[in-house]
Amino acid sequence: MEASTETNNKFSEEEQVVTPWEVAGNGGKIDYDKLIDRFGCQRIDQSLVQRVEKLTSQPAHVFLRRNVFFAHRDFAEILDAYEKGENFYLYTGRGPSSEALHLGHLIPFMFTKYLQEAFKVPLVIQLTDDEKFLWKNLTIEESRRLARENAKDIIACGFDVSKTFIFSDFDYVGGAFYRNMVQIGKRVTYNQVVGIFGFIGEDHIGKVSFPPVQAAPSFPSSFPHLFEGKGNLRCLIPCAIDQDPYFRMTRDVAPKIGYNKPALIESSFFPALQGETGKMSASDPNSAIYVTDSAKDIKNKVNRYAFSGGQDSIEKHRQLGANLEVDIPIKYLSFFLEDDAELEHIKKEYGAGRMLTGEVKQRLIQVLTEIVERHRTARANVTEKI
Amino acid sequence: MEASTETNNKFSEEEQVVTPWEVAGNGGKIDYDKLIDRFGCQRIDQSLVQRVEKLTSQPAHVFLRRNVFFAHRDFAEILDAYEKGENFYLYTGRGPSSEALHLGHLIPFMFTKYLQEAFKVPLVIQLTDDEKFLWKNLTIEESRRLARENAKDIIACGFDVSKTFIFSDFDYVGGAFYRNMVQIGKRVTYNQVVGIFGFIGEDHIGKVSFPPVQAAPSFPSSFPHLFEGKGNLRCLIPCAIDQDPYFRMTRDVAPKIGYNKPALIESSFFPALQGETGKMSASDPNSAIYVTDSAKDIKNKVNRYAFSGGQDSIEKHRQLGANLEVDIPIKYLSFFLEDDAELEHIKKEYGAGRMLTGEVKQRLIQVLTEIVERHRTARANVTEKI
Repeated sequence: MEASTETNNKFSEEEQVVTPWEVAGNGGKIDYDKLIDRFGCQRIDQSLVQRVEKLTSQPAHVFLRRNVFFAHRDFAEILDAYEKGENFYLYTGRGPSSEALHLGHLIPFMFTKYLQEAFKVPLVIQLTDDEKFLWKNLTIEESRRLARENAKDIIACGFDVSKTFIFSDFDYVGGAFYRNMVQIGKRVTYNQVVGIFGFIGEDHIGKVSFPPVQAAPSFPSSFPHLFEGKGNLRCLIPCAIDQDPYFRMTRDVAPKIGYNKPALIESSFFPALQGETGKMSASDPNSAIYVTDSAKDIKNKVNRYAFSGGQDSIEKHRQLGANLEVDIPIKYLSFFLEDDAELEHIKKEYGAGRMLTGEVKQRLIQVLTEIVERHRTARANVTEKI
Repeated sequence: MEASTETNNKFSEEEQVVTPWEVAGNGGKIDYDKLIDRFGCQRIDQSLVQRVEKLTSQPAHVFLRRNVFFAHRDFAEILDAYEKGENFYLYTGRGPSSEALHLGHLIPFMFTKYLQEAFKVPLVIQLTDDEKFLWKNLTIEESRRLARENAKDIIACGFDVSKTFIFSDFDYVGGAFYRNMVQIGKRVTYNQVVGIFGFIGEDHIGKVSFPPVQAAPSFPSSFPHLFEGKGNLRCLIPCAIDQDPYFRMTRDVAPKIGYNKPALIESSFFPALQGETGKMSASDPNSAIYVTDSAKDIKNKVNRYAFSGGQDSIEKHRQLGANLEVDIPIKYLSFFLEDDAELEHIKKEYGAGRMLTGEVKQRLIQVLTEIVERHRTARANVTEKI
């Protein structure tokens, strides 16, 4: 039930490490089944997906159908409540550590946009510029600037502006939000955060103080201007599974301070171009497709760096076919090629060796270029209105 | 240089314990010389008092002349700067744990009012309702209510309203203030707060998060609406010496984040009616004179509970005189009887046995009743304007 880190030595070196600050699989690949067991969350199965489709009267998002969002906590309870006519709200966020976002960063926001549209619910988006200031070598001003830049990319995902509140901690924390932080802090011991996050005595107390900041948006009273008088609204948090430790803590605290436990819907990690060894790294620009990449950049990166499961020679490839399990173009198409039939066709042809790596990469370049172009246009239309 | 607490076992049981949450002398009486040595602050000597009188062109406050405020850190630097025409601001505060204040609570505020008038400087007053919520069994609403009630008593001390900002953390923390909290938190390790405050692993992280909240008002940028554009103002903090640990921490951090170290001017504790064994206790109403006490209450409490250094019988008293060292009426008069000549006269006559305990108590009752009546009138004129 606890996240491991290198610092608290709870897990041996062979174990995979997944925390909000570190993601490293055992020998490269993350074992998501093990993660679900250790974290104690539930797998999203086909019947849950079908229930979402029924309740929202539309096909489930690609990320849900294809199990990009693969785990949850109490998502079924959210659907039960929704079915009874109860409202809920969505909460997601980002730690603004880099200027430009890559496609992996967009995944929770693309999915959250779908959830907001499908369920017609309000959404709060937290930019944890304080977290990045605390964990990285950044000034406060630089952290805030990154938050503002990232906010534009997030807004460009096309949320319903009348139902969406985006804020940075350095600007918004205070009042009712601060009171919830203090409520939460009073219910979590230092020993508990050591167990959950692996803090050590040499860590500064800024880090120790942070978990309640990420927890607070899970409670509607942190946003009186949005939710006052709307009762004890439930909260659903779409996020990558590395954020689970924060919300396990939050869920422990919630009933003690009179709130519903927030529900979670959690994604796996978007793989690096070089292969599936965890999350993409912002420190290696060639490991990811950025929303600022030009069509030429995308073409270059996919052709040069996207790890291929195809065979060394055309002859061998025609004979053996591609190994789809490790093939990054196929992985990326599984995220972003919406047409199920076309995806199935490509996987079949490529797996059988009838399609070559170059052809698959070609299609991927088209798909990614289209997404990035669309994003660029949308971002250009975002005004300084935060 | 470190505060001791029971929990960190830095000092043996015979040692005195002085922390923000506990004050206990070795065998009852606090040894202030030892405290100065251990905390590493300076004694306020006569030449410093004379310098204040010269700079402010008025006699020093009774609390300064009579060494109620007996220790300091960098107070001389504040005076140097003031002499050169540099401005500074005052910062004091209170943890609102009880509805009614007693006279001991008023001491820092009475003294701060004098400093504000004498130096004509701005003042910020922090009500740490968050601290009291974290340390006591109170709800957030009850803590905020106590803060509002205490604020009225504080305002009744008669500060210059045009130069005074009073706030509660639960209402004011946010924005620039929060950014300073995070700056401070980033510069203090968990091990350090364990050393300073004696936190243990079972303590909740609300406690661990609090020291930066009390530290933040030491930096002018926490109050942009007051001090923006006024440069790197110095801060002078009048407080009881049990608050020293917070500001030792703050002074360590200050140069690391580009600020002056706050200066301190620190008082001894106001003794309980029953005798000098530390601070008065809010849990025993007969241990203190409250600002809500009637003239009759005051008369009763002083006559029944004020520990006397007089002898058991009149004959013995006439022969041996009173022991002024332990006599509470004399202690209290030393705080509140402003006329130096009269005080000296009483001490001489009482010490020689020519004056009886009853007569000294009689005079004390007059003095206290007058102070409390004046306070009550002033408080009644305080409107809900916070």
